[in-house]
Amino acid sequence: MATLESSAPHQAEAQHDLAAINQALDESLRLGPGCPDRLGQAMRYVVLGPGKRLRPRLVLMACRACGGDPAAALPAACAVEMIHAYSLAHDDLPAMDDDDLRRGRPTCHIEFDEATAILVGDALQARAFELLATRVAPEHAARCCGELAQAAGAEKLVGGQAADLCGAFDGATVDDLRAIHARKTGAMFIVSLRLGGILAGASEEQLTRLTDYARSLGLAFQVTDDLLDVSGDQQSVGKRLGKDADRGKLTYPELMGVDQSRQLVVELIDAAAAAVQPLGDAAAPLVELARKLQNRDR
Amino acid sequence: MATLESSAPHQAEAQHDLAAINQALDESLRLGPGCPDRLGQAMRYVVLGPGKRLRPRLVLMACRACGGDPAAALPAACAVEMIHAYSLAHDDLPAMDDDDLRRGRPTCHIEFDEATAILVGDALQARAFELLATRVAPEHAARCCGELAQAAGAEKLVGGQAADLCGAFDGATVDDLRAIHARKTGAMFIVSLRLGGILAGASEEQLTRLTDYARSLGLAFQVTDDLLDVSGDQQSVGKRLGKDADRGKLTYPELMGVDQSRQLVVELIDAAAAAVQPLGDAAAPLVELARKLQNRDR
Repeated sequence: MATLESSAPHQAEAQHDLAAINQALDESLRLGPGCPDRLGQAMRYVVLGPGKRLRPRLVLMACRACGGDPAAALPAACAVEMIHAYSLAHDDLPAMDDDDLRRGRPTCHIEFDEATAILVGDALQARAFELLATRVAPEHAARCCGELAQAAGAEKLVGGQAADLCGAFDGATVDDLRAIHARKTGAMFIVSLRLGGILAGASEEQLTRLTDYARSLGLAFQVTDDLLDVSGDQQSVGKRLGKDADRGKLTYPELMGVDQSRQLVVELIDAAAAAVQPLGDAAAPLVELARKLQNRDR
Repeated sequence: MATLESSAPHQAEAQHDLAAINQALDESLRLGPGCPDRLGQAMRYVVLGPGKRLRPRLVLMACRACGGDPAAALPAACAVEMIHAYSLAHDDLPAMDDDDLRRGRPTCHIEFDEATAILVGDALQARAFELLATRVAPEHAARCCGELAQAAGAEKLVGGQAADLCGAFDGATVDDLRAIHARKTGAMFIVSLRLGGILAGASEEQLTRLTDYARSLGLAFQVTDDLLDVSGDQQSVGKRLGKDADRGKLTYPELMGVDQSRQLVVELIDAAAAAVQPLGDAAAPLVELARKLQNRDR
């Protein structure tokens, strides 16, 4: 099965990162007695279930690519994954995308209930900012909080989801779709890379490189997501497929055909690789991960 | 009409604060083109509607009581009001308290729709942290973000709402109810006072005083809230009354009777006043505001 795990020579590093992320997520969701049991269980269900951990891995990889210690970026890695996980739990709600399957398991409001799924999302967002504010180097904490808040907010992540839901898409173009995904997916990819860079003490020039990489990678990821919805294997993808088309959502394959969409992925991956080339050998794992997207099947 | 507006001699100051808060909230909700119109309108509807602005006023009052410039605390005042407003929009949802009236107007999911009400809450929480991270003095920003995130999270605000919803209250005591409200109401009162103090450069001793004041005030506020639900005037209160009892929610009047609840309010107000007495004359407006709670009718 082709996944987003990196192959040799960086496979050991990738596996180490994944294990470190899962352990840090687990530890950061051991909540105090003030948290009701059911809420705490649901938070852990939403975050600790199977997942690619793509965004938190990008945080660590960006940190390493800029010469930083990835361990120092672990709280930021957990923070972006918590924002991502909360947004999925809310997107899956009946009032939104109404999905009952996610990562091969019942979605949060099916496994628990709607009220819990709403509160889980709210609590995970707060926890993300708590981690960033209190667990990363104090000199970078406020900047990290500010950048994550902007990426997660009304003009980016939430705005993209709101625009996607509106769905007045008659006559929409690829540019319109790209604008939605720049917010809905791109912003969180960008902030993942940037937080890793910031915590490594990266220069503004390095941060710009990471941002360009993330913009292309995020879009490539979204196009492959749309391609999987059309032609993926449900067992492997772990969520219901064909739903985007059913509910009249705009997708790349629909707008530009499957072949052209695949071609777009290739171009975006090349652009991502070119963006981080100036960072040198340290950015090789980022390039490798982008190349892997081409064979993505989940 | 007896409200929570302060009377002379601090009335002019209170009115000035209120105007400054409303203007700052308005300015901080002028969002960029990335924010879809409907989402932006709904965010403004939820935050800028009529409201007492009690929590943001407490931020400014605490800042002034510790010798700080309240203008420097305005972003923090906006942040706590946004967290408060988002939590109300989510609490009102059909899956939660299912309320259709709030502050005398249709709740957000009635005026807009459920998906918008969910996203509005998500975006407001992010905006609160963005303001704190980017608009307060850099040396205090991370601490402010951390304290607000904790107050708004799974162990406090969200946890209190989750516990309140569970509602397995047979045999519950006043202590149980107090524990829920310490999280659901108290934590946001406490962080409001503390952020104002932190931004004034308050000492730990001063912050402890503010915390003790806020704990008593928050509880007194909740008891008067319960009393209004039993005996208030719906027109004046601006939300449906008698619903707590209808849905089997635990309230102070039910547990200890109306007279004893009123007596508890008096005791809590005295405790709040005593807590900030060591701060001297600068804390007089805080004492005055607490005393006003006794005659609260909305």
